Amino acid sequence: MLRDFGSRDGAFIALTAELRARLPALVNGASSHVAVPLQGSGTFIVEATLATLVGPTDKLLVLVNGSYGERMVAIARRLNRPVEVLTWPEHQALEADRVEQALDADPGITHVALVHCETTTGLLNPLAEIAALVAGRGKALLVDAMSSFGALAIDLRATPITALMASSNKCLEGVPGLGFAIIESQALAGSGGNCPSLSLDLHDQWRGFEANGQWRFTPPVQVVAALVEALRQLEAEGGIAARRRRYQENFEVLASGMAALGFRLFLDPAIQAPIIATFRYPEAAWFRFEPFYRGLAERGFLIYPGKLSRADSFRIGCIGAIGPDDFRRLLVAIREVVGALQDGTPNEPALTECRT
Amino acid sequence: MLRDFGSRDGAFIALTAELRARLPALVNGASSHVAVPLQGSGTFIVEATLATLVGPTDKLLVLVNGSYGERMVAIARRLNRPVEVLTWPEHQALEADRVEQALDADPGITHVALVHCETTTGLLNPLAEIAALVAGRGKALLVDAMSSFGALAIDLRATPITALMASSNKCLEGVPGLGFAIIESQALAGSGGNCPSLSLDLHDQWRGFEANGQWRFTPPVQVVAALVEALRQLEAEGGIAARRRRYQENFEVLASGMAALGFRLFLDPAIQAPIIATFRYPEAAWFRFEPFYRGLAERGFLIYPGKLSRADSFRIGCIGAIGPDDFRRLLVAIREVVGALQDGTPNEPALTECRT
Repeated sequence: MLRDFGSRDGAFIALTAELRARLPALVNGASSHVAVPLQGSGTFIVEATLATLVGPTDKLLVLVNGSYGERMVAIARRLNRPVEVLTWPEHQALEADRVEQALDADPGITHVALVHCETTTGLLNPLAEIAALVAGRGKALLVDAMSSFGALAIDLRATPITALMASSNKCLEGVPGLGFAIIESQALAGSGGNCPSLSLDLHDQWRGFEANGQWRFTPPVQVVAALVEALRQLEAEGGIAARRRRYQENFEVLASGMAALGFRLFLDPAIQAPIIATFRYPEAAWFRFEPFYRGLAERGFLIYPGKLSRADSFRIGCIGAIGPDDFRRLLVAIREVVGALQDGTPNEPALTECRT
Repeated sequence: MLRDFGSRDGAFIALTAELRARLPALVNGASSHVAVPLQGSGTFIVEATLATLVGPTDKLLVLVNGSYGERMVAIARRLNRPVEVLTWPEHQALEADRVEQALDADPGITHVALVHCETTTGLLNPLAEIAALVAGRGKALLVDAMSSFGALAIDLRATPITALMASSNKCLEGVPGLGFAIIESQALAGSGGNCPSLSLDLHDQWRGFEANGQWRFTPPVQVVAALVEALRQLEAEGGIAARRRRYQENFEVLASGMAALGFRLFLDPAIQAPIIATFRYPEAAWFRFEPFYRGLAERGFLIYPGKLSRADSFRIGCIGAIGPDDFRRLLVAIREVVGALQDGTPNEPALTECRT
């Protein structure tokens, strides 16, 4: 992060090549797919992938059970692409049979898009099952793997996926500023001329890399360098399996500690990914999100507001360069903050668990 | 660069507010314009500004005397916006009288776009003169100030400009990963619904900032923090006037030293900005760009290949956290590399200046 690079110099071209080699290898895609990194946030790479791969005469089916599925719908509509939507409640996983029916009912659908792990809730969707049926019908599958890539195993040799989208700053533990898509080579090669945006055209971006190893437009060099270093650290940790184990332990320490404090998880454990945990607000007058957030922030812990459309909730991330001991310290902080909030509203019965 | 931020936390909201206040103040635009930063490279903010401000029924006139003018044409065509182009040779400044004639000949033109300092060559275009005539005809002016913002004074109270676009990593001396546009408030307020891209919609981006001080989509937090720090350092240096003086001295040390070594500047000094210097290849068999570049890189100096369409050239940047002494060291390195190249081709007469 403290070194500067000439973005067209050999040293940086080598870093870019390492980045583009490491990413598909993580999902067994090195022989079938290519990595196309893009400046910007996760939403930029999702829009770029949809705009590049879904042509004006194609038709996209988006499977939605949270905000990030809805965002893909908004992107497709803004791009003026024909789009169909199948929706599930936020606490339910996508169901393959409804997808199957929708594809059979509308042969005009050419592409299907879904979110692997919905960051709205932390819900893990059944990617392999849906991928198999989409491929069986000869459709392309576009997967927002923003909050799963690097921690939840995806095997492109076993799971047919046309494009996998993610970013530098979630389970890969880099800094934000970069997205990437891992795209099936033939689909990408055939996508020239689709994208209505010069900046977001992943076909042009890929051809740029292939031509001279350079980025078309100035890359965030420190962000790229940090991501390459983060990928080396992922390998040193033991790869995706080891990272998943650490996140799983983080989640379990958090979930059991929160249960002991009286907080309830929003999701059924069967569909909960160890990425981000959504907790319902306690049904108690002492709880208000703002002072709860502030009390934890003062103790060095940043949590997230909820994103549910109908229930009050907050979220705690389980990912990043943190381990179970950090979550034990977090639980101590939560206990303190809950105690302070309860003391501030003395007429309210305390959560008994907090007093033991 | 080594600190992490929660992008929706109060500390980062305060940094974003400082960024959005400091940028328009640098160009006397605080009361008339708003700053809208955007993730990505300079090209992203140029595309976002064109896509947001030029509506589908508007018509854009682009003034071109280099690659970055051409890029605006490519962006507008890709966006399917009606576009007219006026072109000058790369060594000539834009001429107000031709712009005037073009506007009078086509009343359908609603927006005019130009590049303030063409990074292709280092040429400074006559911004104030063209701004006055464009405003006089009631048209909007969009200015790519990528390589001038922060070093060449622009006064929005005296020079009517609808949108000024720049990035974090040139004269502001931040790291790459962020662009921004400083947009006249009324024009931005009226631009809702124009942009065909969700990610690049500056109207939505602005409304996001105004609503809660937060970025719509994950910002590159370290890049933002570095830019705020860079803006504080610009103020500490003495502001834009002081920075221009340093760059001017950099340029003069470079230009006179290169002249002594027999290298010729491409541009007439009257239109040369102290930002980047374009030199013609020496007319001598010993000169080849690759070993020249490599020899300088080995000595710690990265230069740029030329971008001219018809003449062989290379470029040396005068901007960044560097001063005249760095250019004196560069000249020593160039003298060494030239000597080595000449020794490597012993049948070639040496540049006499290198032997004195």
